[in-house]
Amino acid sequence: MILPAPLQDLINAFERLPGIGPKSASRLAFYLLRAQDNLGQDLADALDGFKDKLAFCSECFNITTAGRELCEICDDSRRDASIICVVEDALDVLSLERTAGYQGRYHVLHGALSPIEGIGPDDLKIRPLFDRVARGDVREVILATNPSMEGDATALYLSQRLVGENLRVTRLARGLPVGGDLEYADQNTLLRALSGRQDMN
Amino acid sequence: MILPAPLQDLINAFERLPGIGPKSASRLAFYLLRAQDNLGQDLADALDGFKDKLAFCSECFNITTAGRELCEICDDSRRDASIICVVEDALDVLSLERTAGYQGRYHVLHGALSPIEGIGPDDLKIRPLFDRVARGDVREVILATNPSMEGDATALYLSQRLVGENLRVTRLARGLPVGGDLEYADQNTLLRALSGRQDMN
Repeated sequence: MILPAPLQDLINAFERLPGIGPKSASRLAFYLLRAQDNLGQDLADALDGFKDKLAFCSECFNITTAGRELCEICDDSRRDASIICVVEDALDVLSLERTAGYQGRYHVLHGALSPIEGIGPDDLKIRPLFDRVARGDVREVILATNPSMEGDATALYLSQRLVGENLRVTRLARGLPVGGDLEYADQNTLLRALSGRQDMN
Repeated sequence: MILPAPLQDLINAFERLPGIGPKSASRLAFYLLRAQDNLGQDLADALDGFKDKLAFCSECFNITTAGRELCEICDDSRRDASIICVVEDALDVLSLERTAGYQGRYHVLHGALSPIEGIGPDDLKIRPLFDRVARGDVREVILATNPSMEGDATALYLSQRLVGENLRVTRLARGLPVGGDLEYADQNTLLRALSGRQDMN
């Protein structure tokens, strides 16, 4: 059966999303077709030109509303400007904010160093980070890149470049995930958990 | 952090889709933000008013393009009009068509009988099915409702009402995993179920 074009177009578009295969794409399209509420149209409206309505913060390169110079966080004077948490992606800012355990500012690199993929320091927002540090009001940089090969390489690169500046450079602790099971932890994680063991008193 | 409104709206819309939780919704929205191609806009265009561009076939209630009287299948004179395969949903037509093992016509009920949810015969496209059969050119009705309690009840109801008509009433073979969902069945299972269909009377 050749599906009606509007339906096939929709299925094709859904299929291009990450983690959505042909069957899920069909299911989503037919769900929207059956849905009593206006979800399909709401989604269309939310998607329509949404990229143009967004911009990057000129300070930390987090996402902000188009037309605004700074993001929500850089614009908030209650946030501690002397601590910068460096992340690969704006989505990581969201994750860290959900913990409600951090009151400093951020810096979004928009990627990680990857010689294999040809991504060097100039492809990331690394220069603006150094500029922020050079202004002198920063006393700690937390490197919160992903615990992957690229993330570690990026953290190493940054820490080497930041040595000599009058500041503390830290990175997120490695160890067992909370709620996890020791027997399921991989060797590297266990090794990091061992070497990074902390005094209990 | 309060996300920029256009981004939060998009995440909220994605979250309303079945099988997509808060984290997947954020991930999809940020993916679209980063995507180099025009996927976000393509999806917006595909969704915009797509319901209005579709209609139901006046014969079998399958989905067709708005403005057309019949669907692709009812309009195809090569398809055997003497066999009607009764399914709950238009998505089931798609699954059966993918097997390329059926050359008859369909009838889409748009649901299944469910006393618990208050869905009775009059809420489904059952009357039009009887009308098609009454016209006398049908020699077999294949009941291809889901192998669930509601699907079985619907098949039983239909088979009892169709007894006495001069036709064969069959249902899909029990090759389908019980408790499963027809649209998720793989092609081979569906093909077996088609070729092994059994008489109900």
